[in-house]
This record gives sequence, structure tokens and C-alpha cells, in this order.
Amino acid sequence: MTAALGVARVTVTPIAFPDPPLLNSAGIHQPWALRAVVQVHAADGSVGLGETYGDAPHLELLGRAAAALRGLDVFDLNGLRERVAAAVGVVDAPDRHGLTGPSSAAKTLARVVSPFEVALLDLQGHATGRPVVDLLGGRVRDRVPFSGYLFYKWAAHPGAEPDAYGEALDPAGIVDQARRMVQRYGFRSLKLKGGVFAPDEEIAAVRALRAAFPEHPLRLDPNCAWTVETSIRVAAETDGLLEYLEDPTPGLAGMAEVAAKAPMPLATNMCVVEFGDLPEAVARDSVQVVLSDHHYWGGLTESARLATICRTWGLGLSMHSNSHLGISLAAMVHLGAATPNLTYDVDTHTPWQLGADVLADPLAFDGGAVAVPDAPGLGVTLDPDALARMHADYLACGIRERDDTGYLRRFQPGYEKKRPRW
Amino acid sequence: MTAALGVARVTVTPIAFPDPPLLNSAGIHQPWALRAVVQVHAADGSVGLGETYGDAPHLELLGRAAAALRGLDVFDLNGLRERVAAAVGVVDAPDRHGLTGPSSAAKTLARVVSPFEVALLDLQGHATGRPVVDLLGGRVRDRVPFSGYLFYKWAAHPGAEPDAYGEALDPAGIVDQARRMVQRYGFRSLKLKGGVFAPDEEIAAVRALRAAFPEHPLRLDPNCAWTVETSIRVAAETDGLLEYLEDPTPGLAGMAEVAAKAPMPLATNMCVVEFGDLPEAVARDSVQVVLSDHHYWGGLTESARLATICRTWGLGLSMHSNSHLGISLAAMVHLGAATPNLTYDVDTHTPWQLGADVLADPLAFDGGAVAVPDAPGLGVTLDPDALARMHADYLACGIRERDDTGYLRRFQPGYEKKRPRW
Repeated sequence: MTAALGVARVTVTPIAFPDPPLLNSAGIHQPWALRAVVQVHAADGSVGLGETYGDAPHLELLGRAAAALRGLDVFDLNGLRERVAAAVGVVDAPDRHGLTGPSSAAKTLARVVSPFEVALLDLQGHATGRPVVDLLGGRVRDRVPFSGYLFYKWAAHPGAEPDAYGEALDPAGIVDQARRMVQRYGFRSLKLKGGVFAPDEEIAAVRALRAAFPEHPLRLDPNCAWTVETSIRVAAETDGLLEYLEDPTPGLAGMAEVAAKAPMPLATNMCVVEFGDLPEAVARDSVQVVLSDHHYWGGLTESARLATICRTWGLGLSMHSNSHLGISLAAMVHLGAATPNLTYDVDTHTPWQLGADVLADPLAFDGGAVAVPDAPGLGVTLDPDALARMHADYLACGIRERDDTGYLRRFQPGYEKKRPRW
Repeated sequence: MTAALGVARVTVTPIAFPDPPLLNSAGIHQPWALRAVVQVHAADGSVGLGETYGDAPHLELLGRAAAALRGLDVFDLNGLRERVAAAVGVVDAPDRHGLTGPSSAAKTLARVVSPFEVALLDLQGHATGRPVVDLLGGRVRDRVPFSGYLFYKWAAHPGAEPDAYGEALDPAGIVDQARRMVQRYGFRSLKLKGGVFAPDEEIAAVRALRAAFPEHPLRLDPNCAWTVETSIRVAAETDGLLEYLEDPTPGLAGMAEVAAKAPMPLATNMCVVEFGDLPEAVARDSVQVVLSDHHYWGGLTESARLATICRTWGLGLSMHSNSHLGISLAAMVHLGAATPNLTYDVDTHTPWQLGADVLADPLAFDGGAVAVPDAPGLGVTLDPDALARMHADYLACGIRERDDTGYLRRFQPGYEKKRPRW
């Protein structure tokens, strides 16, 4: 008979950290990004870490889940899903911004499970003396490559000082941003967040990037800002320039229409966002690359299973990113290191957090990649002072739900979120 | 930095144990069934167990793989697959009997990986003090239910004494066999291995089983003995009698034709036998239930990923069985206990091994189910004397490759394996 290691208590700490004014098809990032840090305390005193969204409706569900985990064995991931499902019930808690696609009860549940699953894997690692990558099947690579994530942006939030990256509202601004980011982090592929300006302006930015970075694979992600017709036109005009085109248009049917004519693969984190989306996506051949995201696919083990599905159906695989800190980055690195068919460099918002982190010793980028931590679990340690400071910022910042559209409307009163817009 | 636990040495021991004269669409079981027991010795002296086929071509590949594992970390399942792939190369080693469907290089590789993967999970369990079910995501059930596996059979191998089950060559014989098996093991569902007699005789046997066991879910498995037309006719005539019809006809196209008209789900362990078969099977809706088998799907973690695919595409899931001993049974129990969507009772040949086992303390059936071992790893211990005896039997028995067809031809010289036959 083996001894279980039970969960003693769980804390969920909402935090906020400064976020630059990054533009997307839903509006613009607010001055503070919200996250929640989950700490699962095991009966032996060890602590597992997880990181997730910090929006109020999500926090409420996290609280319900956290209260249901006492006594759960840290290896019992199936039990975790059962307990969270019972605690949360059938709830559909959509994001206001919609940048990760439609919501559903299944996706909402997976989002709530995720940070606890990561924390339990962290605890399993501490209990066994093993890094999480080992618990996911072992490392196939020692360093996980990331892409440089370029955004159209203002120089500063209105009334604030400019950030280090400055303004980027045209091709030259984007190329300049890319140069800074590549110089600092060494990224070997580049993604432009589009859907902000008319398609021809964004095509011009892609061409400018290609001229400035002849060897870097490029991607463009307009977050469903385009009609099918526009998407097909842009795809034709960017033929030979993009390794993939991401979510040009909404929905599996529209994506399939575009995919049938686009010369490059289509990627998504918006129309294939839970397991239930896969059968139709595969039947329609709507997408050729899935951008997984452990935050809403239910954790690292579920994301690893998604990888097997991608391998089986010949789909490419990479990872999507929202604003995140080092716990999420560590989780992504362990998962990426254990995934043989990680076919594209992974997205990350890390450069946009401008050094903010909840970790005592943040993970470093070298040549665009992050080395897989060798220490047990996630291999990262919380900085309690940073956590307390970011929690105080959460309390003070006044933002309780991400609202890119409402924030932009403050400065552009006529602004409306429209997908598709062009 | 965590310490790896490396593989020190590996032994592969071919064994043989008595097998009753069980009939199927390929012929009849020979007097000895072959298996191989894998022992992976870790650097700390612990030993992990695996069990697989014992046919000569497979043994040769197992030997190549075993020689490549020295120093492999016991958590590095990705590394295991890489090393075995490199050691084995691109080889297609089909079974002579074909009862697990077509072979391929991918399926051959998965078959070679499997026993080592199970043994590494056993070692992981010993290293962490955890049963394998915990390493697969935690138990969703404490007992895994099995089905009673009925066979047409002779009373005895020619020249030998009758076994405890006696002859079963007609409906009455099958019902009598089912009664003995249910009485002894408590099975709550029953499967008839068909494809032996003309379909109407086997339909009569199913009807006799239904009359004798009004509450037991029933299955019929003719191992591709029928044409599409015959399959459709049998399906219609057994409407309301079968929880599923297994592999009535060969191939994904034929199965799809049958599935479109059959009133019950179709199950398979013959046309969906590796991940590469799934896209076409799903596209054609060829099967509604996948009978997984960790021995040829690449091990327990890969089978768990297959379960996620079944859940995602709404496919039922159970497990197939060939003649096996207790190491395989333990592996199946741990996997079944960790699989939420195990939708049907699992197949097992255990009753036909008539008490033979390589375990010091064989797992017991109660109410048709096996309790999940609580001890670390697989929770079973090898009986070295039994292993030595069965290895001696292997050396003495003269059989080096399973050949149901050739063995039946000795007594029925005109016998030919034909699929479909009717």
C-alpha cells in the first residue's frame, strides 16, 4: 500500500502587472494585465504553483474549485477534474475580449482545472525529485524555441511615460520593434499581431519584416478580423512570406473556405479551442496548425494528449500565449520539451511584461529559446515579495476584467469590436 | 539538478505455457502459447516487468531493442521510443495469424516498444512509491470489469487429455462453457469468438446465450470471416442481441459499409490497430468502438492517449486480448482504472490459461472484475521458478511462431485460412 500525498490547502492570489498599450482586433491592452497565482499546499509542506487568468468571473470559479481540493492526492489528476467539475457545475464563462475564440461549458471547466493541474504536477515533481518534463514523458529537447511576438502599439498609455519599445503603428515601427526584440531575446521567428489596420497595411508590414529579416519564419495573426474573401486575398498576397496565417476569419466553416485556397497552412487558437472542436475541424480541414494553450485545454497532460491528436491527423502544433508571467512560461517550457511534434516556435508575451515576474529567478531567453529547468517540479520559485506587490497592484488598479474594447473606446469613442471588420 | 535512474540491464525471456485448442477464423490454438517476459533492471537494483508476444521474429526485435537501453532514464519514455526506433529500424514484422489486423512498420515498432514502456512505468512506480495507475492520471475506478471470452473448441488437443472446459462446437456447448466461466469468474458480459462455423450457427449460439443469460451484454467476434453482405445480414439478425459486433469484415471500407446498415455499434481490434488508422476510420465512420491493446499501441501511455481520441470523436473504448499472463493483466488493470471513458468490459484470455502464471501472487477475479493493485509499480512480483519452468517449456515445445492455420491443417489437411470465408 502506498501513501497518498494529500492537498492541505489552496490559495488563489489575483495579481496585476503593468501591460503596454498593445493593439489587437478587440481593442488595446489596458495598463494592467490580470493573472492569478495558484498555490497548492500539500500535507508534507511542499507547494505547487499554477498561473492562470485573473478576470473576476474566472476568479470566482477558481475559488469554488480551490475549496473542493482538500485531501486530493497530488497524483490524482482524474480526481482533480471530477472535483472541479462538481464544484464548478455547468458554467459558461466567456472572455469579454473573445481573443481565444468562443467559450463553452467544457472550455470553461478546462480553464479552471488547468492551474491546479499544473500545480499538482509541480507537487508530483517535488515528491519524486523529477522535473515536470519527466512526468510528461521525458525531454526530447533541452531548449524550447519561442517566437518574437510583434504588436502594433502606442508609445504609451495616455498620460503615462513611453515604454522601452515605443510606438509601432506602421511597417517601419514594426521592423524597429522586431529589431529590438530579436537583439534582446534572439528570437528566430517572428509573429505580427494583426487585425488592427486595413489588411494592405499589415501586408506591407509583413513585406517590411521579410526584407529586414530574410531568414526568419514569419506569421500574421489578425484574430478573425477578416471576411473569407479578404482572407483569401491576403493569403494570396502573402504567398511565400508566411510559415502560417493565424485565424484570419471566424469559425470552422469560414476557415475551411480560406484553407482550401490559401497557399500556406492556417493556424488557430480561436476556432479549435477544446477537444470538442476537433472532429469538425478535421472533417472540414479548417486548420493545419493547432496553437495549443494549456491554460484553456485543461493543463499540461491534456495538452500532451492534444499533441498526439495533432501527430495522428498530421496537424502542425505550436502554442498560443496571452499576457503571462514565469510560472506559465515554465509550464510551457516543460510541455514543449516533452512534445516530439512541436513543429513551430512557441508564442510568448514575456518581452511585453518588461521584466515583471512573480519568480525569484525568472527563466532566461538565449537565442530565442528557454532552457528546460532541471530542478524538481516546474523548477521555479515564487518571490513572495513580488507576489504581495502584484496583489497590492491588483487591489489598487481597479481593473477586474480584461476589456480591450472598452479601454480603446475611452480614447476613440466610436470604436466598435467587429469580427470580421474587413 | 535531479538524479536520473538509469537502466542497467535488460533481460528478455521467451516462455511457453499450455493453451487449449481454441478455434478462430485463422485455425486453432497450438498446444503451447508463446510469450516473452521483459525485465528491466535499474541501476538501484529495482526491476520493472513487461510482457509481450513470444514469436521468433518479435523476439529478435526485442533483443535489438533491449541492447539499446543501457543508461536510459526510467522516466524517459520519449527516449525509449527514440532508442528502440533507432535499434529496430524500419521493419514490418507481421503476425502469421493476422488476428490483430494488418501490420506495418509503425505497428511493429509500437509492439517492440510496449513491454519496455510497461517495465519503465513499473520502475517509475517503484522509484516513487506509486502504483502505475497514479502515473497514468489516477484511478477513476477501484476494480476493472472484464468480459467472459467464449470460444468454440475441441475437448482436447489430439492425443492429450481433455481440459476442464471440454468441447464446445455448438450452441449448447457454448452456453455450458459460459456457465462454467461465469460461475468461476463472475463475468457480467460475454464475448463469443466466432468466424469458425457458418454464420447461422453462430447466430444460434448468440441466441442460446441470450436465452441462458438474459442480462449479460453479448458480443460476437468473427475476426473478419464475413463479406460485407453477410455481415449486414448477421447484424440485422442479431439486432437487439449484441452490445457490439466485432470485426465482421476486413478493412475500413468494408467495415464502413457494414456500419452504415448495422443496428449495433461495430468494434475493432483489426482495422484500427495503430494511430495512423484513425483518420480514415473516423472519416468513414468505419467503427464505433475501438478495442485498444497496449501490446501493439505502444504501451500504456500511448493507450491512454488513444482513449482521449476516442472520447473526442465519440468512439466507445474497451480492450482486446490475446493469450497473456499476469504481467499483462496487471498492466491492463492499471490502464483501465485510469481511463474515464472505458465504456465496455475488457477482454481477457486469463480463464484459458488454466491457472498458469509467471506471478508469485496472481491477480484474482471477483464479480468479473480485478481490483487495482495498491503496491508501487504494477504491484506484481515475478515467480522466478515459474519463469524458469515456462522458459524450459519454451525451449522444449518446439514452437517458435504462433501458427493457428498450420496447426489445424495437420488434422484437417484441406483447411485454408480465408477472410472473408462466408
